[in-house]
Amino acid sequence: MTTDAKILSALRANSEGVSGAQLAEELAISRAAVWARIEELRQAGYEIEAGPHFGYRLVSSPDALHADDLLARLGKTRVIGRDIRVFEETTSTNDVIEKLARDGVKEGVVVFAESQTKGRGRLGRKWVSPTHQGLWFSVLLRPELSPQETTQLTVASATALRRAVKTVTGLRMDIKWPNDLLIGGKKVVGILTEMSAEVDRVRHVILGIGVDVNQEIFPPELRKLATSLKLESGGEICRAELATEMLRELDMDYTRICGGDFSAVADEWEAACATIGRNVSVQMGSRLIRGSAESLDDDGALLVRTEHGHLERIIGGDVTLEK
Amino acid sequence: MTTDAKILSALRANSEGVSGAQLAEELAISRAAVWARIEELRQAGYEIEAGPHFGYRLVSSPDALHADDLLARLGKTRVIGRDIRVFEETTSTNDVIEKLARDGVKEGVVVFAESQTKGRGRLGRKWVSPTHQGLWFSVLLRPELSPQETTQLTVASATALRRAVKTVTGLRMDIKWPNDLLIGGKKVVGILTEMSAEVDRVRHVILGIGVDVNQEIFPPELRKLATSLKLESGGEICRAELATEMLRELDMDYTRICGGDFSAVADEWEAACATIGRNVSVQMGSRLIRGSAESLDDDGALLVRTEHGHLERIIGGDVTLEK
Repeated sequence: MTTDAKILSALRANSEGVSGAQLAEELAISRAAVWARIEELRQAGYEIEAGPHFGYRLVSSPDALHADDLLARLGKTRVIGRDIRVFEETTSTNDVIEKLARDGVKEGVVVFAESQTKGRGRLGRKWVSPTHQGLWFSVLLRPELSPQETTQLTVASATALRRAVKTVTGLRMDIKWPNDLLIGGKKVVGILTEMSAEVDRVRHVILGIGVDVNQEIFPPELRKLATSLKLESGGEICRAELATEMLRELDMDYTRICGGDFSAVADEWEAACATIGRNVSVQMGSRLIRGSAESLDDDGALLVRTEHGHLERIIGGDVTLEK
Repeated sequence: MTTDAKILSALRANSEGVSGAQLAEELAISRAAVWARIEELRQAGYEIEAGPHFGYRLVSSPDALHADDLLARLGKTRVIGRDIRVFEETTSTNDVIEKLARDGVKEGVVVFAESQTKGRGRLGRKWVSPTHQGLWFSVLLRPELSPQETTQLTVASATALRRAVKTVTGLRMDIKWPNDLLIGGKKVVGILTEMSAEVDRVRHVILGIGVDVNQEIFPPELRKLATSLKLESGGEICRAELATEMLRELDMDYTRICGGDFSAVADEWEAACATIGRNVSVQMGSRLIRGSAESLDDDGALLVRTEHGHLERIIGGDVTLEK
């Protein structure tokens, strides 16, 4: 953790205040240096009171995302979020991670952007990412999986993000296979899983995650399809709190998968899934499959019983829930 | 085709010679311009005679690879080799193609290097690529396949390269699943298939191909494992001729696969395969599978009947042929 992250961490742990002397000792820096860092944090939008009796006290945090703040809130994780980077603007956080991956950066690095100029969704679709209103981030993973097992990661991300939203907002989201989280049938969270691989071996996987958090209005063409956590919960959400809860839960599910325990993830997924048990149509290129979604298989593929009684294994395509 | 490629093409089509006037007319340039291009080709190592009666006549071509020469030799293909680039040295031709892929270059582009400083094989292994002695090249493809279907491309490459070697040298190579071509149990050709993909959709595939052509000696540690076409045939091989024959055959098999006709490729593959019908052991990470290799499935995976009677589907790992 950086010094700023340690200061924020100490301030959050001591809501009645912490003295400059104590901070200086814990961080092994001078009291003047503590004062200088506090000034910098104030410049960055943190409201920090100072008084002779209570020392320093954190009154409020800005709505912007700061790497130090996120690291301080997150604390220790196994893999995901040990390295966090925040950009004010980028083309797509997946592009930034792709470059880091090629440069050999370790798995678990997370890149947030306050806005993306070329955010993208599955199947080459555009993803709208308005500044400061959502969470747009990507995670680098280097799992020992074959390319066909990477569906497990999309499935695990959905369960993890769902738990995080429940903890922070109380809202329950439905999962739509494979990568959407919905409230009342409208999309709130999208997950794009990209990989670089040999035929039998994944080099790296990039999880790209988009969460509509504090939007109050959507463009007309999206109003029936998308919603935000603020619109659904009625209150402004602290994005930094939600972001760190998401990283914590992603780290937990990634640990479960790497430990070979995908079945626990799959059980949780199926219980929350709006797709299982429903009639679906799946457009795969030029082929349309209709049937009943029965379950997930060991690799996270969707098993669909067709009208003709065959069981089809679906690894992608565009899934529509039938009425 | 470039002007140089057209000149070389015309010289090859007219082995008794072609007049400067005729070249000028066919290429719609001046006779002085023809003369200037001929001079440049001579500088590049092409031996071109000139005489008042026969015009220009190609006596010999240099052993170096030239993009114009390769384009002229290849003629028209459907996809592979419509754009050819030759580098004197690069880290790895797969790296160059990776960059072209990200820049949006069309499928079919081929990159050759006369030497690679970081040539690589499967499972992160090093591939030795001595200058001017072999063919080290990569091909960019953008097939409509899922990640698990990309094994088809490795299989198709093996059949294509095998036919090309047979045509040019008369040598018969055995195929070892999934990506090696052997003569007398020693490796001559390696294929590395890399991809960038979403979970259900390939963005691009890079075929990296290494062929040991004119080496006369190998480092001691490779002598029992590797051989060259020159050592096996007893004569120097024209690398440009072999390269263009390989591109032609790769283009044909890629066309077969894109047309949905993988079964024809698979039949040819099985007939040439030293793995099918043999007892094999397959190291997949920490797991060792022993059994008899029975056949290929629709995606090009190897089906192995284990000692316990199970049929295991192998998509990768390290395959050893048992005695």
